[in-house]
Amino acid sequence: MKFTCLKQELTGALSIVSKALSSKPQMPILSGIYIKSEGDHLMIEATDFELGIIVTIPADIETPGQLALPGRYFQEVIRKLPGDNVSIAEDTEEKSVRITSAQANYTLRTMNAGEYPGVHQLEGDLHFVIKDNILRSLVKKTVFACSNDESRPIFTGVYMDIDQNTVTMAATNTHRLAVKKETFDEPIGAMKLIIPAKVLGELLHILTSEIPSDVRINCSFNQISFSFENIYLTSRLIEGAFPDYHRVIPTNLTTHVQLKTDEVSAAMDRVSLISRANDYNVVKLSFADQKLHISSSNPDIGHAEETIHAQIEGDELTIAFNATYLVDVLKTLDGDVCTIDLHQPLSPIAIRDSDDPNFIYVVTPVRTMH
Amino acid sequence: MKFTCLKQELTGALSIVSKALSSKPQMPILSGIYIKSEGDHLMIEATDFELGIIVTIPADIETPGQLALPGRYFQEVIRKLPGDNVSIAEDTEEKSVRITSAQANYTLRTMNAGEYPGVHQLEGDLHFVIKDNILRSLVKKTVFACSNDESRPIFTGVYMDIDQNTVTMAATNTHRLAVKKETFDEPIGAMKLIIPAKVLGELLHILTSEIPSDVRINCSFNQISFSFENIYLTSRLIEGAFPDYHRVIPTNLTTHVQLKTDEVSAAMDRVSLISRANDYNVVKLSFADQKLHISSSNPDIGHAEETIHAQIEGDELTIAFNATYLVDVLKTLDGDVCTIDLHQPLSPIAIRDSDDPNFIYVVTPVRTMH
Repeated sequence: MKFTCLKQELTGALSIVSKALSSKPQMPILSGIYIKSEGDHLMIEATDFELGIIVTIPADIETPGQLALPGRYFQEVIRKLPGDNVSIAEDTEEKSVRITSAQANYTLRTMNAGEYPGVHQLEGDLHFVIKDNILRSLVKKTVFACSNDESRPIFTGVYMDIDQNTVTMAATNTHRLAVKKETFDEPIGAMKLIIPAKVLGELLHILTSEIPSDVRINCSFNQISFSFENIYLTSRLIEGAFPDYHRVIPTNLTTHVQLKTDEVSAAMDRVSLISRANDYNVVKLSFADQKLHISSSNPDIGHAEETIHAQIEGDELTIAFNATYLVDVLKTLDGDVCTIDLHQPLSPIAIRDSDDPNFIYVVTPVRTMH
Repeated sequence: MKFTCLKQELTGALSIVSKALSSKPQMPILSGIYIKSEGDHLMIEATDFELGIIVTIPADIETPGQLALPGRYFQEVIRKLPGDNVSIAEDTEEKSVRITSAQANYTLRTMNAGEYPGVHQLEGDLHFVIKDNILRSLVKKTVFACSNDESRPIFTGVYMDIDQNTVTMAATNTHRLAVKKETFDEPIGAMKLIIPAKVLGELLHILTSEIPSDVRINCSFNQISFSFENIYLTSRLIEGAFPDYHRVIPTNLTTHVQLKTDEVSAAMDRVSLISRANDYNVVKLSFADQKLHISSSNPDIGHAEETIHAQIEGDELTIAFNATYLVDVLKTLDGDVCTIDLHQPLSPIAIRDSDDPNFIYVVTPVRTMH
């Protein structure tokens, strides 16, 4: 194999596919990046069996073929090259490639490309197209609510419920729940799946183009793929039945509060400086006199309190939470105003974004001594 | 104690003094930041017994006094405050302070200020004034050459030889040596001392003002202090006699090479990508045909080579080094052109900066198999 391409294109492709390189690969070949030529393009791939990524870039291909190179070294070498163009030529006898750019010459040992399992293009049962900003918002507003606890896999993923004209994403760690819905003009079929949070996190990092683009989603019973621009990303799905989250959404809420999102977010962030020194990271919220009073204490360090303006309808109430569960959601809200609906000190509350009627966040309070 | 000051001034002071907070304090009180009022100023201090820092800032002082607060928490709380002004009021009975800024209120437990050892202003035997940029250059061009090996303390510091009209700084880890000299118009006395590299590293971070300033240096037999702007920094010295480094500077060098600094620095950086995977991080340099050829090999990963233009006078030569010892010095050089003077494959070489006749770097080559 022998080709020349733009260094910038190759660097960009490698920084994307390297997200699918495992730090502890199941097989040695999975620490490699695989390159295949197709017409006047290179397909650059990596996979850890959970996540697979292919990025396609234009290249001037002299001898077509396929190659596997040690991922981390290949990425670092290309990033450091001095010139604008990179030439890569394989020496099959020496089991190496020669990488040339301006006055720099590297030789890297190749891996056995024949052993590479490949990222297979998914022939799904259901597919639809979604705008990148809509997909980004669906993911961003739910994925943070997942659990990290690998012993209960279904909570480490985001549930995606495709039901004709709606796609709903939901995530929970059993103490909090985030749900976001999107509506489509045309029915797109029906399917329920659980996508690993880690993969969606990487998708958010890659899906940052400033040019609006369409993302084509393809789903099978055990896989999902996202394709957009020159990128193809595929993930295995998490097996299992997601619990019926509708039951968790409270309906009997009697106290309704409106707050300025940036005010409550900044205040919560500051109070959590004290609360996070505590075992349960507890902050106390008192809703009274058209004010929200947020406080936290630690006997060894001290005490933090903030008072912000609130528009309160209904009974006054004092309630306590794990600060992280509030800080996390407040950061994802886009609207100027958010609402908190409550019932009693030990009942779950609902948080909503004034700008987004399709989003709801439910969080269970904690019991405190005082 | 009770005072109000600008949040920005306090944040700046805390970020500087916190460099003297040890992560493993010898006494609990050393995890604290100490504040004392003096007229219309606050003196904010921290020390780990090796390094001590005092920063003075203006404040509106209602009740004078002294205070000690848990360092990390105090710094984080102040940094996150919403308003422009911070008010701090002590409650001696409660052993706490109340910190107020806009709508935010924190209470932090105080530490026992009486236990605080204090940063003592040094009454030195010798003092002189040096321009900040000259001091920065003396430190920057030597400190990187120190050793990290705590078992031989004198090599973990930079030697400062004050001899009337000259100040020379020298540092070595026994494999490499960096020496830089400065000349003064007036004689300033004579003294030899070894300053901990860690302290000089912090000094470089703090000494970054864009306005040229004078630094007053004060030395005693076991301490040095630097005062500039509103900052006072003092350090204990390392005991012991620094070896006579003059003997190490080679004089019989017969091959003279001129190189473009940025070219050789970038090439060395790229080749070291391969060499650093090796146990001894070895790069090979061949000087021949008015070219420098830099290369390194690793049997498992591959090979890197670069060829750059060189102006060579004298015998051609192939020689090998620990890549780090070359990469480090090349990064500190300011001139466009550097010179390398050599003799034989196993003799030390000298590296000089075309723009700086007062700097010299000596490095010992390594023996290689091929």
